[in-house]
Amino acid sequence: MPRILRLAAAQMGPNQRADSRDAILARMVALLEGAAEQGAQLVIFPELAFTTFFPRWLLSGAELDAYFEPAMPNPQVAPLFDRARQLGIGFYVGYAERAEDGRRFNSAITTGPDGAILAKYRKVHLPGSVEPRRATASSSSRSATSSTATPASPPSAAPPPGTLPILGMLICNDRRWPEAWRCYGLQGVELMLMGYNSAAYDPNGGSTEDASLRAFHSTLAVQANAYVNATWAVSVAKAGNEDGSGLIGGSVIVDPNGLVVAEAKTLGDELLLAECDLDACRQGKEKMFNFAAHRRPEHYRRIVDQTGAIPPKG
Amino acid sequence: MPRILRLAAAQMGPNQRADSRDAILARMVALLEGAAEQGAQLVIFPELAFTTFFPRWLLSGAELDAYFEPAMPNPQVAPLFDRARQLGIGFYVGYAERAEDGRRFNSAITTGPDGAILAKYRKVHLPGSVEPRRATASSSSRSATSSTATPASPPSAAPPPGTLPILGMLICNDRRWPEAWRCYGLQGVELMLMGYNSAAYDPNGGSTEDASLRAFHSTLAVQANAYVNATWAVSVAKAGNEDGSGLIGGSVIVDPNGLVVAEAKTLGDELLLAECDLDACRQGKEKMFNFAAHRRPEHYRRIVDQTGAIPPKG
Repeated sequence: MPRILRLAAAQMGPNQRADSRDAILARMVALLEGAAEQGAQLVIFPELAFTTFFPRWLLSGAELDAYFEPAMPNPQVAPLFDRARQLGIGFYVGYAERAEDGRRFNSAITTGPDGAILAKYRKVHLPGSVEPRRATASSSSRSATSSTATPASPPSAAPPPGTLPILGMLICNDRRWPEAWRCYGLQGVELMLMGYNSAAYDPNGGSTEDASLRAFHSTLAVQANAYVNATWAVSVAKAGNEDGSGLIGGSVIVDPNGLVVAEAKTLGDELLLAECDLDACRQGKEKMFNFAAHRRPEHYRRIVDQTGAIPPKG
Repeated sequence: MPRILRLAAAQMGPNQRADSRDAILARMVALLEGAAEQGAQLVIFPELAFTTFFPRWLLSGAELDAYFEPAMPNPQVAPLFDRARQLGIGFYVGYAERAEDGRRFNSAITTGPDGAILAKYRKVHLPGSVEPRRATASSSSRSATSSTATPASPPSAAPPPGTLPILGMLICNDRRWPEAWRCYGLQGVELMLMGYNSAAYDPNGGSTEDASLRAFHSTLAVQANAYVNATWAVSVAKAGNEDGSGLIGGSVIVDPNGLVVAEAKTLGDELLLAECDLDACRQGKEKMFNFAAHRRPEHYRRIVDQTGAIPPKG
């Protein structure tokens, strides 16, 4: 019997800083309900879905704290959790996490159809461009949403056999790093979930990258890594002009061949639906990317033995 | 001053088993001369360019030996080396190597404009599909063209500063493995060279992969890995109907943004030219893929600590 999972990518338009939490949650619940009406069992929201992408400012103190979730769920996100449980559908959502010990992370969770949290992930890869130039204080909003945490494993709680896939989660810039995908591929991942807020302009202040090139990069990374890990993948944007900064759209659902099966057409709230046959992962996992048969880790030492590039001596 | 290298990908049509070595070399020399006329400084030929893709048969003994080069160069490939040296252009070429100790490899070399061999590489990743089902004897042509060798580093001989790039080489199936690319990325690679013979049909005997999907995979892997390693890449096919087996074409030259700048239109002998600005690698290497700043190898242990996939315990 084929293992079919009906997914919805819930791309979101911008969350302005002035938008109330209630207004944002109402949009998310509307997306959730629209997905449920179309039979979705799992809905994927973007990174930092409940707020504006506040790391674009250097905030601190109470102004910064207001963007963080002290626990998950909590009263200020309850409407989403409650409605999902009523509808019997799970979701992935990105949020700013303030841990009990005070550390701050850029995190994501995935819930099951009963509302229980199946797994949590904390972002590993800092944004590639802006961070090093501008982060100044360890309490800044940027360093606060980076992470020193271990990436979450796919859910260690047993999924009901034959129904739920082996899940992996990434956040935004993580999706550009094949190492991150491979760590999930090596756990047999069948469905990778990720949300992002990606600038629609050259984040280095130059003119060498535009929205079209950046959307191409976003999709290319997902297609190739889905293919070489033989997994379904869902990559979901918060898009549009948010507080004066442009964000790319281009949310996609990609199959284990790396083919795009659904793609966002707008920069606003938009649902993409796909019926995913999880057994479509098998051809890749058993043949071309049968890791046990074909990987040669004895040749891959540089990947863990060094961090930066070391050019050969002339 | 920009560092410009003018490259030619020399896609080859099929080499039939009945074709003489002289006839094949004449085609290669014609491609070399055509590239030189258009100002190319480096020409990239396919994997096993001097012969038919003999691993499709299970050969042994003298019949197998005939496909191998006992040294490089040697009299039976001299016309290519001699003409390249006369023209003052370098080349990458794949060939079957019989080492002095008798071991056999699927290898590639790159020569400089003076004809000297800059570097040699031996294929690391076995074909993903056919091998496990059919390889039977350690002396077979298939196992003979796999490898237990260490991948070559980029040339350790000093390239003249400011002219030659840091080179990496892969062969055929290697190009699908991000680990292989990353090992070169971690050496600051600026130009990746690779040749392939890839089936135009499902190599597992099924009907789930056709020529179009397999060509898509071939290009996707090169685009994504060029992007995430911020390198130029040239991927060159032996194409067409070779001894009754279809081979995909789709040779490409890809820039450090992962964009295809030249692509083969035929399944025959065909030259693709591109003027490559090696400094175009810098934006990626210094910003998004500044490995020293952004890689997190402490999270990548699975990549070397395990070979096959290990699903999470339910």
